[in-house]
Amino acid sequence: MLDEAWLHATYRVESRSSEIDARANAIALEQSIETPIEGVNDERVLRDVVARVVNIARVAETSFDVTIAIAVETTGFEAGQLLNMLFGNTSLHDDVALIDVEVPPRFAAGFGGPRFGIAGIREITGVRGRPLTCSALKPQGLAPAQYAQIAGTFAHAGIDVVKDDHGLADQSSAPFTARVRAVQRAIDEVNRASGTHCVYAPSLSGHCGQMREQLLHARDSGVRMLLIAPMLCGVATLAAVARDANMPLIAHPAMAGAARIAPPLLLGKLFRLFGADATIFPNSGGRFSYAAKVCDAIVERARAQWLDLSPMLPVPAGGMSVARVPEMRARFGDDAMLLIGGSLLIAGDQLLARCREFVAAVKREGEKR
Amino acid sequence: MLDEAWLHATYRVESRSSEIDARANAIALEQSIETPIEGVNDERVLRDVVARVVNIARVAETSFDVTIAIAVETTGFEAGQLLNMLFGNTSLHDDVALIDVEVPPRFAAGFGGPRFGIAGIREITGVRGRPLTCSALKPQGLAPAQYAQIAGTFAHAGIDVVKDDHGLADQSSAPFTARVRAVQRAIDEVNRASGTHCVYAPSLSGHCGQMREQLLHARDSGVRMLLIAPMLCGVATLAAVARDANMPLIAHPAMAGAARIAPPLLLGKLFRLFGADATIFPNSGGRFSYAAKVCDAIVERARAQWLDLSPMLPVPAGGMSVARVPEMRARFGDDAMLLIGGSLLIAGDQLLARCREFVAAVKREGEKR
Repeated sequence: MLDEAWLHATYRVESRSSEIDARANAIALEQSIETPIEGVNDERVLRDVVARVVNIARVAETSFDVTIAIAVETTGFEAGQLLNMLFGNTSLHDDVALIDVEVPPRFAAGFGGPRFGIAGIREITGVRGRPLTCSALKPQGLAPAQYAQIAGTFAHAGIDVVKDDHGLADQSSAPFTARVRAVQRAIDEVNRASGTHCVYAPSLSGHCGQMREQLLHARDSGVRMLLIAPMLCGVATLAAVARDANMPLIAHPAMAGAARIAPPLLLGKLFRLFGADATIFPNSGGRFSYAAKVCDAIVERARAQWLDLSPMLPVPAGGMSVARVPEMRARFGDDAMLLIGGSLLIAGDQLLARCREFVAAVKREGEKR
Repeated sequence: MLDEAWLHATYRVESRSSEIDARANAIALEQSIETPIEGVNDERVLRDVVARVVNIARVAETSFDVTIAIAVETTGFEAGQLLNMLFGNTSLHDDVALIDVEVPPRFAAGFGGPRFGIAGIREITGVRGRPLTCSALKPQGLAPAQYAQIAGTFAHAGIDVVKDDHGLADQSSAPFTARVRAVQRAIDEVNRASGTHCVYAPSLSGHCGQMREQLLHARDSGVRMLLIAPMLCGVATLAAVARDANMPLIAHPAMAGAARIAPPLLLGKLFRLFGADATIFPNSGGRFSYAAKVCDAIVERARAQWLDLSPMLPVPAGGMSVARVPEMRARFGDDAMLLIGGSLLIAGDQLLARCREFVAAVKREGEKR
């Protein structure tokens, strides 16, 4: 367990062996005082603030894992500034990736992690003993009543969570307030009539002030879950919304890039640290190219015991289909939410039947124990 | 000039020739409706919302520039959502980079671009006929009085702009309010005593609400310029701060990555569109590896005539030294701000003299016309 004064960041550095010591030291300076060490004559800064190289491990001929101890005081205990100290300037080097972070326990507790996590999402949706099901309101450009109709069909079929497509924001065709009111009402009606427990997660957009207004409106409309894209809005905004929301947050990977911050760290650990309750990731074999082992690592980081932070629900997505339900259940187990969007929506008039197949497939898998 | 209903985004796609048509179409769907086209039966969506491939140009054996027309209505006329529509999900493909964006004139006017730009920064600093000079308060971990002393020395030497190191946030060693008050007061005193016009640009951090509080405090302390890192706080926050600040904003490239969004587009055009008045970039030959032609392109995009947006001041930085002043002036001309940080600070007791050399070198270059 780490001393509360330091956190450890690990970087994968492509470098010749003869240069790795200098590269590692340069990263330590860049990610702390950002000036040559000769420019510092303050004893306290030299002792308590300058980052230090704590380990260099060779992983291939010209590839090294460099672990740097960074003073937690430099983060100001704030999510955006933490990301700045982890990778702000070093993100500008294309031969360095940030691959892992270890933080001390009280530091992590200060961020708080998932307020609901897997247990809270199961509580709200009433789903036990199987993966959750999720679909998305698409395409962009429809009117609120059209989204409400699709949402009602999803709910009727027994889908657990209906989220906005992450592209739905506050556009004129379906402004946030009108869309959220109409969709939540449609889902509420089905829930009352059919005894289902479908939950709607609308997508927040804009800056923190706009999101807070959206949150208030969503709460007034009866919304009990939210979608947020932390790399678009900034992790400081994620952390602030997690403090205020009092409902689970699903993190969306938009703008999370492919590799400069290792996806298991970013989508798994960091989003979890800052308070996401569920994390959507582009599963292998879909429209994106994340390798299966990367996806496994994301899932592992989301759910593993980690200090006192609640586990976060992994949400494989990005071109999934009903046919893949057994394989995804086998791979990820029950504590996951399977998100299928487009491949349900192409059913057209058969949407309800296709959604019911999805729900039934997941329930069937849940009964195999 | 583009129709007001569509913007054009250009992606560099690594692909086999036989697959490029399919790849291009997939990007158009991913960056608009995010569902197979068969899932859409709404005529308006098909006509006005679905993005379209407008050009595919081969640039190398397996490299293509794909231009997609994206409906401006999908952006909600909001910076974060615009970035989402430009590169949200496609950022997850490691063989696609976003390299250019063209937006229609009224759409650009809605964001407003630099409120001060080069002319406004010259007005506030009183600098004509030469590049501006800039240095940074470092290292992290000092007390407010220590930063104030360094700032006073910078001002005394005649440096035009003193900015916070981008790592200075709201840490306990130098909380924002105490630091900003002390530094601004020190600079004000020198300005009064010596007739200099030094301007201080403190660094904003956290989410938009926190930045607005910092902005109010900064204004109360007499601050007339600000530093902001758009890829840390989110471009929605940059756009909101640009609307509120009523003083020039210097954009910092922290977390801007090396290449997935082409630096001339991100640091040049997009930051400018969203309201940055100056843009810091890691100049070639310093601590970062941006090629000279990339830096030239950033500078070109920052200053070129572009719709009705004011030009933005380019700020070469990242390990520059006084010895490079003539070369940087020759390369970038007068409408630039030369930022030298660490290489001044290592002068220790000779800081004032070293800063005066910097100021004198720039003035000398300004006199060569």
